[in-house]
Amino acid sequence: MNTIAPHTTDTQWVLTLSCVDGPGIVHAISGAVVAAGGNIAESQQFASADTGRFFMRLQVEAVAQPETFESRFTLALTPVTERYQMSWRLDTVDRPVRTLILASTATHCVNDLLYRRRGGQLPIEVPLILSNHETVRDIAEFYDVPFEHRAIANPAERDAFEARVLEAVEEHDIELVVLARYMQILSPALCAALEGRAINIHHSFLPGFKGANPYKQAHQRGVKLIGATAHFVTTDLDEGPIIEQDVVRVDHSYSPRELVQLGQDEEARVLRRAVNWFAENRILADGARTIIFR
Amino acid sequence: MNTIAPHTTDTQWVLTLSCVDGPGIVHAISGAVVAAGGNIAESQQFASADTGRFFMRLQVEAVAQPETFESRFTLALTPVTERYQMSWRLDTVDRPVRTLILASTATHCVNDLLYRRRGGQLPIEVPLILSNHETVRDIAEFYDVPFEHRAIANPAERDAFEARVLEAVEEHDIELVVLARYMQILSPALCAALEGRAINIHHSFLPGFKGANPYKQAHQRGVKLIGATAHFVTTDLDEGPIIEQDVVRVDHSYSPRELVQLGQDEEARVLRRAVNWFAENRILADGARTIIFR
Amino acid sequence: MNTIAPHTTDTQWVLTLSCVDGPGIVHAISGAVVAAGGNIAESQQFASADTGRFFMRLQVEAVAQPETFESRFTLALTPVTERYQMSWRLDTVDRPVRTLILASTATHCVNDLLYRRRGGQLPIEVPLILSNHETVRDIAEFYDVPFEHRAIANPAERDAFEARVLEAVEEHDIELVVLARYMQILSPALCAALEGRAINIHHSFLPGFKGANPYKQAHQRGVKLIGATAHFVTTDLDEGPIIEQDVVRVDHSYSPRELVQLGQDEEARVLRRAVNWFAENRILADGARTIIFR
Amino acid sequence: MNTIAPHTTDTQWVLTLSCVDGPGIVHAISGAVVAAGGNIAESQQFASADTGRFFMRLQVEAVAQPETFESRFTLALTPVTERYQMSWRLDTVDRPVRTLILASTATHCVNDLLYRRRGGQLPIEVPLILSNHETVRDIAEFYDVPFEHRAIANPAERDAFEARVLEAVEEHDIELVVLARYMQILSPALCAALEGRAINIHHSFLPGFKGANPYKQAHQRGVKLIGATAHFVTTDLDEGPIIEQDVVRVDHSYSPRELVQLGQDEEARVLRRAVNWFAENRILADGARTIIFR
Repeated sequence: MNTIAPHTTDTQWVLTLSCVDGPGIVHAISGAVVAAGGNIAESQQFASADTGRFFMRLQVEAVAQPETFESRFTLALTPVTERYQMSWRLDTVDRPVRTLILASTATHCVNDLLYRRRGGQLPIEVPLILSNHETVRDIAEFYDVPFEHRAIANPAERDAFEARVLEAVEEHDIELVVLARYMQILSPALCAALEGRAINIHHSFLPGFKGANPYKQAHQRGVKLIGATAHFVTTDLDEGPIIEQDVVRVDHSYSPRELVQLGQDEEARVLRRAVNWFAENRILADGARTIIFR
Repeated sequence: MNTIAPHTTDTQWVLTLSCVDGPGIVHAISGAVVAAGGNIAESQQFASADTGRFFMRLQVEAVAQPETFESRFTLALTPVTERYQMSWRLDTVDRPVRTLILASTATHCVNDLLYRRRGGQLPIEVPLILSNHETVRDIAEFYDVPFEHRAIANPAERDAFEARVLEAVEEHDIELVVLARYMQILSPALCAALEGRAINIHHSFLPGFKGANPYKQAHQRGVKLIGATAHFVTTDLDEGPIIEQDVVRVDHSYSPRELVQLGQDEEARVLRRAVNWFAENRILADGARTIIFR
Repeated sequence: MNTIAPHTTDTQWVLTLSCVDGPGIVHAISGAVVAAGGNIAESQQFASADTGRFFMRLQVEAVAQPETFESRFTLALTPVTERYQMSWRLDTVDRPVRTLILASTATHCVNDLLYRRRGGQLPIEVPLILSNHETVRDIAEFYDVPFEHRAIANPAERDAFEARVLEAVEEHDIELVVLARYMQILSPALCAALEGRAINIHHSFLPGFKGANPYKQAHQRGVKLIGATAHFVTTDLDEGPIIEQDVVRVDHSYSPRELVQLGQDEEARVLRRAVNWFAENRILADGARTIIFR
Repeated sequence: MNTIAPHTTDTQWVLTLSCVDGPGIVHAISGAVVAAGGNIAESQQFASADTGRFFMRLQVEAVAQPETFESRFTLALTPVTERYQMSWRLDTVDRPVRTLILASTATHCVNDLLYRRRGGQLPIEVPLILSNHETVRDIAEFYDVPFEHRAIANPAERDAFEARVLEAVEEHDIELVVLARYMQILSPALCAALEGRAINIHHSFLPGFKGANPYKQAHQRGVKLIGATAHFVTTDLDEGPIIEQDVVRVDHSYSPRELVQLGQDEEARVLRRAVNWFAENRILADGARTIIFR
């Protein structure tokens, strides 16, 4: 569980949990809310027929004395979470999530994330952007985000880059790593170290295309839709749990270059949504699937 | 509350309710579920900042003895619903909703509803189609649905038609009236009599167009999107609470006739979704808005 | 070139052609239109950077004497089509295309095609539906379309079914074969015999899934979009030139059964568009791609 | 006709024209292309049944001697454009269009246009941003675009602002004025002066809402779609010819603030497309409609 920011009378808490499904869970959790002097402002739940697990996300506000609500709520929750052997997490709503961005040459995703963060539309803070290219440096500087460049010209430099990622995660107490078109394949060790807290974005087509230059392949096959998928990073390349997907319509007259541009727009849109849902504690893992509590 | 169909071990109950928002509601309701020996299979809730009301939809299954669950649950619910002065409704999941369809000349909505009902995709039963034209008679016959034609050539015939609607509602214990492109304006008295249980479908454009032949107007203004809106019937013509909307993209090359065809496809799709959500008790009224618990 | 229906003053002709791209093609073709006393009502063209070929679709009306326009136009076209070694085709607009439908158990695509044909929204005539199941028989009868059932319980019956397909194509002078969820794999010989005139529809996901029960796989992976692809049949299973694709949005709460229903709606919509474009001579082949002149 | 940039062997020319429809137009135009030693790379045309006018957009490349193609083509076109009394315009493809941006407090449209211009995705140059607020100054500076602030606190200052707009149009030889959420109502005189070369963006709903705070109204009515419309400025407020529209789906759980954010994303996307099509000479006026040659 995270350290929680100072509480005001407007503070809302967000509780996310999962456990084996069974009778009485909602009653027990809502009892803890009542016992702590809280009120449920928003609640979503889902029972997975696939895994037999129960998932819940609650937003709770204190009816009085918000400064001590957290300890009261934690106290009331403890016997419930123990009885049902719950995985759970308590956080405050709108707390910016400490996010490390990994980039390469493409600017569209980084620019979109930083523009929205500055406009108060994305509850993240970005203590660092790490990139193996210089391309996004001026964007980082415009948005006052520290930028660090480390070239990757050989396997040793790739290992050093990954070591720096893990070091930065430690140093800045990073909660989320965003691969914003970071075009390097992560080592299995790094994938494992970041499991459940690293989000990747890639293009998506119907049908899928293997190998180099997928937009060119998509053009050659004359696809009518191009899209993007945001997913958690796992050791199984591009096969991690899907968070969000979207597509746009194209036709035979689009050049491969136009397909790339439209695909990049989709990537930025889809990644932005995925990051926002993560930062708002709206994504729960159900085996190979995600539950998104929008 | 409706009479509920015979219960099997697979039966699920659906409880919908609303009341003034406040602490403890979820705990009280989930307590009634536990007390009755039930388990929550699906749950959604929403607190409206606009009206200060709380809305909830629960699907509940009996842990044991389903044949007596309804009376146990009702018993356990009563003190809760009284304490919070709840509007509530208990029904069984998948019970076909008794639906009266009103039609005129257009066939697309009627055909779509009956095709899906027959395929088991729409939990409605249709004891009667009433129409002021003969056009949908053969479709009704193909799908074994009683059809009744009554011409409307003058105000007296319109009054007689409306009287027949109310009589049919009574006679068949109708729960939902669907205006499937029934092109007559309902009298204020009929609107009032059917409030909250009559759904209308109409075309929608950006911007909206007043007056006759809106597709021609849409063509002349060169709109790029055409769509449809399903809403509850109120005395305020076409201004009732919105249930569902959707659009499709068009361009300058579409003739008014093509716009009409695409608009009809959207009407059928949008109306079908609205009817389905009504039949599944997924629509709750929050003042002039609908809460849709998908 | 097809035999063309009797011409009235309203008749429009549609000319589609392709050839190696180069200067002067449009001028030569439009010269033939002028020489024949025609007027271009609609025209689209595309030069493929991939194959170096030029594609064109023209709708032409006779300024006078429509009854002899076809022969005048053909006469004027001949030297042009010979000079540029064009593939070309002259047809009349709105002539119903003779279509053979192959079906199995699913009804949604057949129902959609026949409903729209009856409503005058789809310029096809259907002299026969061939199916290895009885499921669509009553729909065929309702729409007055001949229906023939032939079981496929073993390889010999499959061969017999395919022989009957080719015989029916011959017998009814079939121009288009629609696989409306015909769940058998066509033999390479039949694929080859029907190349360029057989359209198949299948579900599409991001990512694609191999093997049985793709909707269940899609559910397990938690995809956020499901869709459908209509394509020409080639010997390369499900890899023929794409004609049309579309998707709908889903989330974790959809059961595999709901995914199937939504997927079927998409299949019917996508197939209907592909059949309509074929019937209106709007699809031209550019290697592995289709050019769609909407 | 514009002054045209220096020509290279890669230069393509774009010809747009309209005239009263009739036989022989395409033949005459394509004859001029052939006579000038050109080749048609892309061509679109449309005959409007509403106004009886014919519209065409051609991209042409020189088979040889590109440096003199423009004069050869103009010479060959002259008798044709005179005979058919055409409105026409010859330009080069990819020439950046001189664009004046008007802004107020909102940053999202300005940021999107400048980001894409820098990335080479939008063929515009922006010699000046004029704003009645300071909000976009730092974005303008980041993208090296001159920014000028003039407060509008009273009618006299509004008149002065508008006079500065006309002066800037003159001074910078402006071809396109983009109202990127410029929240002032233009005077009829300015609308008239900029007719056909000023694009505005505004939010769009189904149904439309009049008066202040439309997002709040949309929330209160529970709309399921919110969108944006880009249109040419005319003296008829927000009723000019529509260029592009799009929508996104929302539900009851979206706060008015979330609706505003989603609406702004749509505004930026829709405006960007409209500006791009204008810059590529893809928009032709057909009375109150636009023809978009995508």
